[in-house]
Amino acid sequence: MGDSVASARFEEAEGFVRMLQDRICEALVAFEVRVGSEATFREDRWQRDGGGGGWSRVLEGGAVFEKAGVNVSAVWGEVPAVVKPQMPGDGERFFATGISLVLHPRNPHVPTTHANFRYLERGATGWYGGGADLTPYVLYEEDASHFHRVLKQACDDTDSSYYPRFKKWCDDYFRNIHRNEGRGVGGLFFDHLLAEGTHPKYAEPHDFRTLTAFWRRAAESFLPAYVPIVERRMATDYDDALRNWQLIRRGRYVEFNLLHDRGTKFGLQTQGRIESIFMSLPPLVRWDYDVKVAAGSREAALLEVLEHPREWV
Amino acid sequence: MGDSVASARFEEAEGFVRMLQDRICEALVAFEVRVGSEATFREDRWQRDGGGGGWSRVLEGGAVFEKAGVNVSAVWGEVPAVVKPQMPGDGERFFATGISLVLHPRNPHVPTTHANFRYLERGATGWYGGGADLTPYVLYEEDASHFHRVLKQACDDTDSSYYPRFKKWCDDYFRNIHRNEGRGVGGLFFDHLLAEGTHPKYAEPHDFRTLTAFWRRAAESFLPAYVPIVERRMATDYDDALRNWQLIRRGRYVEFNLLHDRGTKFGLQTQGRIESIFMSLPPLVRWDYDVKVAAGSREAALLEVLEHPREWV
Repeated sequence: MGDSVASARFEEAEGFVRMLQDRICEALVAFEVRVGSEATFREDRWQRDGGGGGWSRVLEGGAVFEKAGVNVSAVWGEVPAVVKPQMPGDGERFFATGISLVLHPRNPHVPTTHANFRYLERGATGWYGGGADLTPYVLYEEDASHFHRVLKQACDDTDSSYYPRFKKWCDDYFRNIHRNEGRGVGGLFFDHLLAEGTHPKYAEPHDFRTLTAFWRRAAESFLPAYVPIVERRMATDYDDALRNWQLIRRGRYVEFNLLHDRGTKFGLQTQGRIESIFMSLPPLVRWDYDVKVAAGSREAALLEVLEHPREWV
Repeated sequence: MGDSVASARFEEAEGFVRMLQDRICEALVAFEVRVGSEATFREDRWQRDGGGGGWSRVLEGGAVFEKAGVNVSAVWGEVPAVVKPQMPGDGERFFATGISLVLHPRNPHVPTTHANFRYLERGATGWYGGGADLTPYVLYEEDASHFHRVLKQACDDTDSSYYPRFKKWCDDYFRNIHRNEGRGVGGLFFDHLLAEGTHPKYAEPHDFRTLTAFWRRAAESFLPAYVPIVERRMATDYDDALRNWQLIRRGRYVEFNLLHDRGTKFGLQTQGRIESIFMSLPPLVRWDYDVKVAAGSREAALLEVLEHPREWV
């Protein structure tokens, strides 16, 4: 009996990500409304065979967002054999809840973004993971700095080592190693944040309450990190050449998600819902052969930063 | 000294695939010329760090072929540690040569096709691999039957067990297991064809000369298998809805190549030339959320065949 009943911590985390899903979707739809678009989210409620399910929300064909996917799931069941060795905690059953979003704006001046905030439990052990990162098509240094600054503030209140550590983790993780370039200009990435005293390898020098506060603060900083960038860039004109560049760069996004992303791999290995996993893929993508950029161009400036991650704060 | 000098067999195979590259590129350009398009192939000659190199030919933006990549390579060097266990033969050095092509037509009535014919050597052991397969967007049963019939003829002269065996191998290999559907309507796939007496596991009951003749015949059957289909379908009208369906289905092609294809994985693991590996990716692709097809539609008819591979001859 007891092993299919979620803990109070789990239920609180689930309640939080569901509230955040509402808030984020509202903020995104407000952009559509502002420019007279009627695009909005549809929600698909799905059940998972092994236990639990999710709420997938997707907006397609918007004026501001060409495709936006904002997923929440709360699933449980047997720990899959393939992930057992990397999972802290004891026992055969896990609980996982989280929000995961990818936004593909139409205007190439507005960066694509991804965020994920999750809480997992195995036996008596619970841990947080998450992060947010930015993938521009045109490099605006002030946008990258703003995004990082807001995320850094969310970290600094808890632990001044978090921002540098999670910023580097993000740069290392979201890297298309086969092209030796970052997926974007980074942000935060963290995983396995356990309260002190609960694990020899992963535990942080903080109690669970402090970690919960950090995790919520980081998740809540997504909108203030991203929204001002959309506001600044959404009305900027662009030509076919820049749109083309955006479609080509979206191809790199697909390459990362299908070749390297652990979340995609985990989803496919555990028979996750395909349409929810692939909601992150861009609406329209190009692969041209051996694309070269002109020296000194804005495309070259972007590539320089993707190849050599920079400090933004 | 001797270990960087290719065998006569290797040189003959390389000469053959280079000749075939010329012949196939000519046949494809002839389609462009026929409709008044000036699109043609550009060739990039590239060198591989570890030894050898290739000739990558790509045609982009044609009227008939939106993107066509026809690669030939002849490479050699140390056997990569990751592939050692699966490679027949002895010794630390390998030689590999082959032709690999993917054609993405513009008109959704014309199927995408892929073909690959290769010869490998490790020490004194040499073997053939290859195949050709068809990925339609609209199911024309007579096209699938024609394609398979020509390939079957190429097999039957050598060994009547080859077509059923290699047809099934193709259906099994080119399968998007995460969606439980085939990439297309199949064709042939074979690997590790060694002459009798040379290997306990892989050897075929044929001498090297017979295998060489089979391999060449299979490779030469690509054009007669594919060209008549292009001729039949290239002038068929299509609307935006069908074009959209083509772009969505091309997404499945990308999913297969990045998630499952061993050739892509091998190329990336052995630091192959990225632009040549990814030449196979379609020019323009869509990912829409949770696409449904109407019962009884031609889209549904295609999906039925992709889910349940059929006998075409």
